[in-house]
Amino acid sequence: MFEGVYSVLPTPFTGAGDVDLPSITRVVDLVVKAGVNGMTALGVTGEVSRLTERERGQIVEAVVKAADGRAKVIVGASADGVRTCIEYTREAKALGAAAVMVSPPRMLKLNTESVVSHYKALAAAVDLPIVVQDYPPISGFAMEAALLARIAREVPSARTIKLEDPPTPFKTTRILAAAHYPAGKIDEAANVFYKFVPLMRFEFQEGIGMAIRKEVLKRRGVLADAATRAPGPTLDESTRKALDSVLAWTAKQEGASWILG
Amino acid sequence: MFEGVYSVLPTPFTGAGDVDLPSITRVVDLVVKAGVNGMTALGVTGEVSRLTERERGQIVEAVVKAADGRAKVIVGASADGVRTCIEYTREAKALGAAAVMVSPPRMLKLNTESVVSHYKALAAAVDLPIVVQDYPPISGFAMEAALLARIAREVPSARTIKLEDPPTPFKTTRILAAAHYPAGKIDEAANVFYKFVPLMRFEFQEGIGMAIRKEVLKRRGVLADAATRAPGPTLDESTRKALDSVLAWTAKQEGASWILG
Amino acid sequence: MFEGVYSVLPTPFTGAGDVDLPSITRVVDLVVKAGVNGMTALGVTGEVSRLTERERGQIVEAVVKAADGRAKVIVGASADGVRTCIEYTREAKALGAAAVMVSPPRMLKLNTESVVSHYKALAAAVDLPIVVQDYPPISGFAMEAALLARIAREVPSARTIKLEDPPTPFKTTRILAAAHYPAGKIDEAANVFYKFVPLMRFEFQEGIGMAIRKEVLKRRGVLADAATRAPGPTLDESTRKALDSVLAWTAKQEGASWILG
Amino acid sequence: MFEGVYSVLPTPFTGAGDVDLPSITRVVDLVVKAGVNGMTALGVTGEVSRLTERERGQIVEAVVKAADGRAKVIVGASADGVRTCIEYTREAKALGAAAVMVSPPRMLKLNTESVVSHYKALAAAVDLPIVVQDYPPISGFAMEAALLARIAREVPSARTIKLEDPPTPFKTTRILAAAHYPAGKIDEAANVFYKFVPLMRFEFQEGIGMAIRKEVLKRRGVLADAATRAPGPTLDESTRKALDSVLAWTAKQEGASWILG
Repeated sequence: MFEGVYSVLPTPFTGAGDVDLPSITRVVDLVVKAGVNGMTALGVTGEVSRLTERERGQIVEAVVKAADGRAKVIVGASADGVRTCIEYTREAKALGAAAVMVSPPRMLKLNTESVVSHYKALAAAVDLPIVVQDYPPISGFAMEAALLARIAREVPSARTIKLEDPPTPFKTTRILAAAHYPAGKIDEAANVFYKFVPLMRFEFQEGIGMAIRKEVLKRRGVLADAATRAPGPTLDESTRKALDSVLAWTAKQEGASWILG
Repeated sequence: MFEGVYSVLPTPFTGAGDVDLPSITRVVDLVVKAGVNGMTALGVTGEVSRLTERERGQIVEAVVKAADGRAKVIVGASADGVRTCIEYTREAKALGAAAVMVSPPRMLKLNTESVVSHYKALAAAVDLPIVVQDYPPISGFAMEAALLARIAREVPSARTIKLEDPPTPFKTTRILAAAHYPAGKIDEAANVFYKFVPLMRFEFQEGIGMAIRKEVLKRRGVLADAATRAPGPTLDESTRKALDSVLAWTAKQEGASWILG
Repeated sequence: MFEGVYSVLPTPFTGAGDVDLPSITRVVDLVVKAGVNGMTALGVTGEVSRLTERERGQIVEAVVKAADGRAKVIVGASADGVRTCIEYTREAKALGAAAVMVSPPRMLKLNTESVVSHYKALAAAVDLPIVVQDYPPISGFAMEAALLARIAREVPSARTIKLEDPPTPFKTTRILAAAHYPAGKIDEAANVFYKFVPLMRFEFQEGIGMAIRKEVLKRRGVLADAATRAPGPTLDESTRKALDSVLAWTAKQEGASWILG
Repeated sequence: MFEGVYSVLPTPFTGAGDVDLPSITRVVDLVVKAGVNGMTALGVTGEVSRLTERERGQIVEAVVKAADGRAKVIVGASADGVRTCIEYTREAKALGAAAVMVSPPRMLKLNTESVVSHYKALAAAVDLPIVVQDYPPISGFAMEAALLARIAREVPSARTIKLEDPPTPFKTTRILAAAHYPAGKIDEAANVFYKFVPLMRFEFQEGIGMAIRKEVLKRRGVLADAATRAPGPTLDESTRKALDSVLAWTAKQEGASWILG
């Protein structure tokens, strides 16, 4: 159902800290033109935990409008309570989302049964596909493979997993290759992938990753401002220089010069 | 400024899961008549993480109205982003709160400087006292004594601490005694305190504590329903029986028979 | 097999930080005379993580000798590797232990299968009953009820659980009552239990609990010194005073005056 | 004092699970011939938590003998108690270590003062340089920059930091470049570094990283067996194939063909 490559969208802010809707439109345009099958708004990369409920709606509206049917839009709807999760999902559906992405609720002493109940209650309340997000650093709960399989079995609308619990990078590699390239082109996919790994590793740094990705999008002319919302990270001079270096190296790889914008 | 005893308020829900405003009024009445100096709404005990922004406002309004100037109202305003925290605080002030209670923002790789900046930015934006909440299981960040002292020093409006990081029970004992009883009555305070410890220990159980407290308030005729919001806990039969036992024992202590309602 | 009441033993140290074997003998004597069915050495309460392998052996030897067949001795044998766990268990058996107590191994990304394998490998290597310890703050891994049941099913020698993951206090109450008092005496058990709860709550404080328990044993004439090993806790003056107060209150309860030694 | 490049050593095991000393000698030889300034034994990569005290000594002895003065040997001496840490450090010094590497002790409610005291007590007891290891996933304690600076200031023998708390990858890049290449050769260092990043990223996968590194060393003829100790990881077929792919890609980079052995 959600085959192919999906991009997670950042939420652009102005220097004054407001949501920057024109930049959102440009980001969506960029990923659509790059050939993605879809995109995810209101995820961790979208700094969703620092958005108000009103801003959530504005962003989804802007993303769906900019995508304009050219690619699917998945909307983050994770919440600590099932009622709020249902409310977010209903709003996402009404605004045109193709699916919601949902983590287990954050709660002390959460257990397997509570997690299954959460997805079941959501599926019963709203008729929309659910992407199960497995990212323990945020949810605080590690879902074992058996639990993920059980959710897929017991909640038919929740059969897609966003796998972010390591060791996943190599699984991502395989999934990316398998999804994006027809059979027989695994080596080509790997070749494309490996030459961007130094940049990806640099961008993935816990703590400052969001600020690096926004800086790259600003350099490419897509974001008007690279600001994250407090207490999000800002880049110091030495990180900027290291980014210059890794971008320059990447641009020298065959077919990668576009990275400089 | 906030001397005396403050009660943390639960958020009552109907069996259907909606916020139950008439029960809120009764809870506020109960604690005011018990002689508290104030109360805190929208805290962890209020299941705040499972409320929508609209419900937050309704609850604060109901609590302030029910308190009717007889006791102070402190409102939980913790948020992962400083902008949201400021927005919550402005709303709390507009609705009549005497202070807000704020935890450090939840964020991977949070550090001391980010925490200080968070409280400074809030204090600069809104002129309202800030109670610094120190409850690591929720915020994920342990504030050492030196940090708490620094916040009190650098943020004049944030000089009250809600200490919940163990070993605190005995500190709570001392604070409770010192605050509620004039000098010289420490022993009386201890006597009152110790006879309720078995019930308090029972209520404080991680995982089901919220459901136990709501059940006790229902038995006392204050809450219409003891429901918590999913994925919150529900009581099984053996826990109800154990609660019967500890309540019966407590009621037999001198001057504690009122606990049965 | 392990019915009744078991006491967890502290490891006494001299003021210079050495293991104090004569005090161990007195502690064992105290609990045996109090009527326990058995005791556990080398647990968290025994500061086991701050002992060398040589000291482990000395302590088990001293405890078994002091118990002298009057009560069973269970020995903590948790280790991060299954080989070390087996080695500890073999030594415990050779020294006369009735069982070992074993937590899941500490490891990033531990999962259900690894935990089951750990207990299976241990059971296959040494013929000795295994008490499964469920204390997530130490092991870093929360064992759900289904996993505990599976271990009991698949590892016949591992059918006893030391339950320390909250909400357990009330389970402990029920188990204590059920184990120590014949059917029909539940109320008597509860009565005994509740009057000690204020002291137990005080002793259980995370961070300084070990130091408080040692101080109480010292006051009762059992330990020569209340020292814990660095970086273990020490008591400040205000905690000592609070301990005086709670001990005095407890001693005034019917049949509890012996607590003062 | 510890300028240059240091390699962290794995601990080789035979298929039967015993420490494999001949393979240790070959690993040390490999890194010395690759030009390192030193190496670290008994670190996380050496599966130190699954070694007995006797094995610790055997390994350090073998490493020091194999290094034979050609490169410095740093020995991991982290322990939950300061006494054990001192004992490990004394043994390391006696066996010829140039320094010990020490993490904060693991303990619930650890705080800044306890960490400083730990390093101070160690420095006072043994005259040997201390490398402060900052790897929160293992120690469970995040040391902020101010604490690292304070340790360096108050404990003169503890002025070297092994920085592993992200965002560090890019710091590692800078340190590697600055240490290994004379001024003016930063670009050459970056070039060397970037072409190995896809392999490094693959090896660094949490959960299976240790098994991957051992497999690579086995393919290069250094380890007799790639076994880790239970509950350590083993490689499945798809991971082996992914490793084939990333090794093949790396070997095609200029000057990197030696990676295939």
